[in-house]
Amino acid sequence: MRALVLSDGGEVQVREVPEPEPGKGEALVKVLVAGVCNTDLELARGYMNFSGTLGHEFVGIVEHAANPHLIGKRVVGEINCVCHQCHYCRMEMPHHCLDRSVLGILNRNGAFADYLTLPEENLHLAPASARDDVAVFTEPTAAAFRITEQVKINDDDRVVILGDGKLGQLCAQVLWLHTKNLVCVGKHAWKLKLLSDLGIKTAFADEPLMRGADVVVEATGSHQGFERALELVRPEGTVVLKTTVAHPTALELSGPVINEIKIIGSRCGPFRPALEALSLGNVGVRPMVTDTFSLSDADQALARAGEPGVMKVLIHM
Amino acid sequence: MRALVLSDGGEVQVREVPEPEPGKGEALVKVLVAGVCNTDLELARGYMNFSGTLGHEFVGIVEHAANPHLIGKRVVGEINCVCHQCHYCRMEMPHHCLDRSVLGILNRNGAFADYLTLPEENLHLAPASARDDVAVFTEPTAAAFRITEQVKINDDDRVVILGDGKLGQLCAQVLWLHTKNLVCVGKHAWKLKLLSDLGIKTAFADEPLMRGADVVVEATGSHQGFERALELVRPEGTVVLKTTVAHPTALELSGPVINEIKIIGSRCGPFRPALEALSLGNVGVRPMVTDTFSLSDADQALARAGEPGVMKVLIHM
Repeated sequence: MRALVLSDGGEVQVREVPEPEPGKGEALVKVLVAGVCNTDLELARGYMNFSGTLGHEFVGIVEHAANPHLIGKRVVGEINCVCHQCHYCRMEMPHHCLDRSVLGILNRNGAFADYLTLPEENLHLAPASARDDVAVFTEPTAAAFRITEQVKINDDDRVVILGDGKLGQLCAQVLWLHTKNLVCVGKHAWKLKLLSDLGIKTAFADEPLMRGADVVVEATGSHQGFERALELVRPEGTVVLKTTVAHPTALELSGPVINEIKIIGSRCGPFRPALEALSLGNVGVRPMVTDTFSLSDADQALARAGEPGVMKVLIHM
Repeated sequence: MRALVLSDGGEVQVREVPEPEPGKGEALVKVLVAGVCNTDLELARGYMNFSGTLGHEFVGIVEHAANPHLIGKRVVGEINCVCHQCHYCRMEMPHHCLDRSVLGILNRNGAFADYLTLPEENLHLAPASARDDVAVFTEPTAAAFRITEQVKINDDDRVVILGDGKLGQLCAQVLWLHTKNLVCVGKHAWKLKLLSDLGIKTAFADEPLMRGADVVVEATGSHQGFERALELVRPEGTVVLKTTVAHPTALELSGPVINEIKIIGSRCGPFRPALEALSLGNVGVRPMVTDTFSLSDADQALARAGEPGVMKVLIHM
């Protein structure tokens, strides 16, 4: 089968590789559509020292599984494959399993391929009302919903989202379901317009903005974004770090101490509310798709996703 | 009267200054004993751009007040003087009052003087069972209790305190009231011994330490301390930043995001539990006093407090 493989040497190439064999408890999934995430670009630059097949956002059809009810079903999949036995699994924090593999990110081949394997327990049926190019957004939408598990957001809380990229947009749409007192800050008129078309307030990064936000979500992945977040959040407010940056950041920490700010890292989230929001259209994703490539041209898809002004790039198998 | 004054130019000198006039709602307090805090040393180095009389830890006698019950009483005092009218005062976060002054730190002369003024509402009666050289620790002990208002600490939670200095020791003793599963990490055998004499577990900074702590309190004020805190805390655990450092710190933030760490700044705390713990002897402070100076030699007291291996320096009026 075909797969977009990141080699040890850092080369990214579409290659012929053997079809994967599902292990015990795992399903074999024929991938229909996969999405390129910024993390894929960071991995290609050396983040996590990953090598193997890239990709962790997908929708596909189960071709083989021990559970007969899964076979032939259209599914999306959680990316953390966990041991159920370590300290953190037993503490009900499976996403932090010490022995985990992560689809296309850590010790497990990913979704930019004709086939992938995942534990059956990781799979969720994709609702018929969510087309492939919508269902493929389940994983990043779940990551946005993770914020609502970590921070209580009241309906009059003032929320600022920094970043108008893919993840910033999803965070804005998801948190907008909790409070209308929200503004998404970005640098690109056309990206911000996708949100204002939905009725969500937006601002340009160089506009002055009222300080004192209850919650600020940092989704720019930049040093400046983090500094701005610390400026905008109120005393005892919360800054959610939603993006990982592969290099160290110089920070002035006396401000956060004096103002008793909470800074909280946020990663993978719950699939159920994400699937519901996508299937009901409460979160709209199709205008975010900039371009589509076939798996045979997946290297070009990755390059395209790294160009300025590009949002989501999809790969059709 | 005498006062230890930090001038605009950064000079620290004992000077004759006029006795302060209490404003409306304020009491005039004759200072008995004051304590030198690391923040005083940072202020002398330019932190907060403060100028005026230094000092914010004290015990004294009320000489003048509108409330007759206060006159002649031995008191300690909260250091934030607030407006009760701004947004944060009305949100019950008076410590974050936008219009606040802070004793010896921000727009208000401090306690290294024969007299100080504070709003009457800031004063707490010092229990007779807490001698002057104990009651003077109320403010920093309250700062340690602040952690228990911000982070729920269960009796089986594993807590690591980084730093065996004055604040580290107080944090260790206060959190030890909540969990015995606690270790204080420092660099000085004799300082750590003060804690082990109380039955508190200690370790040297260069010893390997079990990772996966539920809560890590950073009280070293150093870059290395913060990095170590991020190493030692468990996924979804909490790092409490208890010290302010006046220069930026380079941080690798992808770890905290992947592990979904909470980082929380922590400043001033509640006086009531601090007074109770000090008067009952649940927190022991007298072994921490390294040296005592008279107010006339307060500049030497500050210099002494900055020497290596020195813990609390007191100033008697």
